[in-house]
Amino acid sequence: MEFFYSDDIHDDVIKLNTHESKHCIRVLRKKEGESLNVVDGKGTLYQGNLISITKKNCYVRIDKIFENYSCRDYYIHIAISPIKNHDRIEWFVEKSIEIGVDEISFIRCERTLRKKIKLERLHRTALSAMKQTLKAKIPIINDIIDFDDFVNVNNKSNIFICHLENENRKNLFHYRKEISDNYKHCILIGPEGDFTSNEIKLSKKMNHHPITLGTSRLRTETAGVVSCSILNFLNTL
Amino acid sequence: MEFFYSDDIHDDVIKLNTHESKHCIRVLRKKEGESLNVVDGKGTLYQGNLISITKKNCYVRIDKIFENYSCRDYYIHIAISPIKNHDRIEWFVEKSIEIGVDEISFIRCERTLRKKIKLERLHRTALSAMKQTLKAKIPIINDIIDFDDFVNVNNKSNIFICHLENENRKNLFHYRKEISDNYKHCILIGPEGDFTSNEIKLSKKMNHHPITLGTSRLRTETAGVVSCSILNFLNTL
Repeated sequence: MEFFYSDDIHDDVIKLNTHESKHCIRVLRKKEGESLNVVDGKGTLYQGNLISITKKNCYVRIDKIFENYSCRDYYIHIAISPIKNHDRIEWFVEKSIEIGVDEISFIRCERTLRKKIKLERLHRTALSAMKQTLKAKIPIINDIIDFDDFVNVNNKSNIFICHLENENRKNLFHYRKEISDNYKHCILIGPEGDFTSNEIKLSKKMNHHPITLGTSRLRTETAGVVSCSILNFLNTL
Repeated sequence: MEFFYSDDIHDDVIKLNTHESKHCIRVLRKKEGESLNVVDGKGTLYQGNLISITKKNCYVRIDKIFENYSCRDYYIHIAISPIKNHDRIEWFVEKSIEIGVDEISFIRCERTLRKKIKLERLHRTALSAMKQTLKAKIPIINDIIDFDDFVNVNNKSNIFICHLENENRKNLFHYRKEISDNYKHCILIGPEGDFTSNEIKLSKKMNHHPITLGTSRLRTETAGVVSCSILNFLNTL
C-alpha cells in the first residue's frame, strides 16, 4: 500500500503536485484508471481512481472518503530542546511520527546550543514519515520558543518533565491513571546538560510531573523517542 | 564525564590504543597526571591517572576498579532481520545500546533482502555507543543466521515474536509477570513485509509469545528500538 499527499482537493477531484505526480508515474508507474490512496495531512484518507495524467500533474477522482483515518483517542505533545546536529532532529521527527505523535514543539532552554530550526525541512520530513507509516494526519510542528514562554502558554496540568535533578522523579507508569484519564499529554525534554535549576524551579511552580526514563544516559533525541514510545504504550493499556 | 575503551589491561596499567589516545590528547587535551575513566567492554570500569603519553599511546595507572558497572538484573536479546539500508541497522544498534540491550542477533528470514551484515562496522558503532552512554559493557553482536537455525538454537521459553498475522497477539504489558519473573528476554523482529506463515508456524511450535507493538506501522529498525524501550520499561516497574 502507498499513500500520496495532496492539499489541492476540490469537489470530487484531487490534484497531485508535481513531486507526488512524478513519484506516482515515474517510480510506481501508475496508469490512468488505477486506484490510488491520497491523504490530506489533516486526518482524511481518500480512495479514488487516476483519471488524468498531464506533464506535471495527476488527477484523481474520489470514490470513498475516510475521515479521522487511524486517529487515536489521545494526544501526545513533545516539547524538546533542538540538538546541535540537525540530522538528529529530523531523525527524532521521523521516528516519533512513526510511533505516534500529534504535536512537536522546540524549546529554547538556557543550555540549548542551537537557537534556530529548519522548520520547512522538518515539515518535509514529517510529510514523508506520515505517508511512509500510512497515516493521514501530519503532526503540528511549532517553531522554536523560549522555555519560559512555552511553559507559561502551555499551562495545562498533565505535563511531564524529564530532568536529571535528584528529587522525587517517578517512572511514567506511576502516572498511568492520569494518562488514561486525560486526553492530552505533554512531555518536556531538555538539552544535553539538562534543564537548569531555574528551569526546574519554574517547572515545579507550574506543577509539572518530574519523571525519569530509566537509568540509561539517553541523548536528547533518544529521550524524545523513548518517551513517545512509552506514552503510546501506556495509552493503549 | 568521558569514557575511554581499552582491552589492553595488565596488572595496574592500562594502555590506550592509538585511536583512543588521539582522542584523549588531541581532542580532550588531557595531560599527564589527570584522571581518566576506562572501560573494558566486559562490564568493568577503571578509574586511574594518566601516567605517560607516547607518540601513539597513553598509559593509565589504575586507582579504583568497579566491576559489573551499571549492570542490570535482566537481559535483553533482540533478534532482528537486517534492513537493506545499512545505516539504519547501525542506527538501530546505536539506539538500542543507548536504551539498554545485552545481545543483538541478525536473522535471515524468507523475506529478508540483505543477506550479509558489516559486523566489524557494527562493533565500532557499538563501542562508540557504549562509551557515549557511559556503559562498561558492549552487547554481544552475533553474525547473521537463518531464522530456523536461530529459533532451534534459542529454544528458551521467554521469546516474543512481533508479527502482523491476525491472531491472538498481545501487548507486552500482558506478559509483565513473565517479564519480571525471568532474567532473559528475547524479541524477534521480522523484515519489511513480515515473517512468512511458515516462519510464524515454526514460532508457534516453539511456544513463542506473539506480540503487537501497537497499531502504527513501524519500520523494522523502529520496531527494534520500540520493543527495546518497552522491555526496559517493563523490567523496571
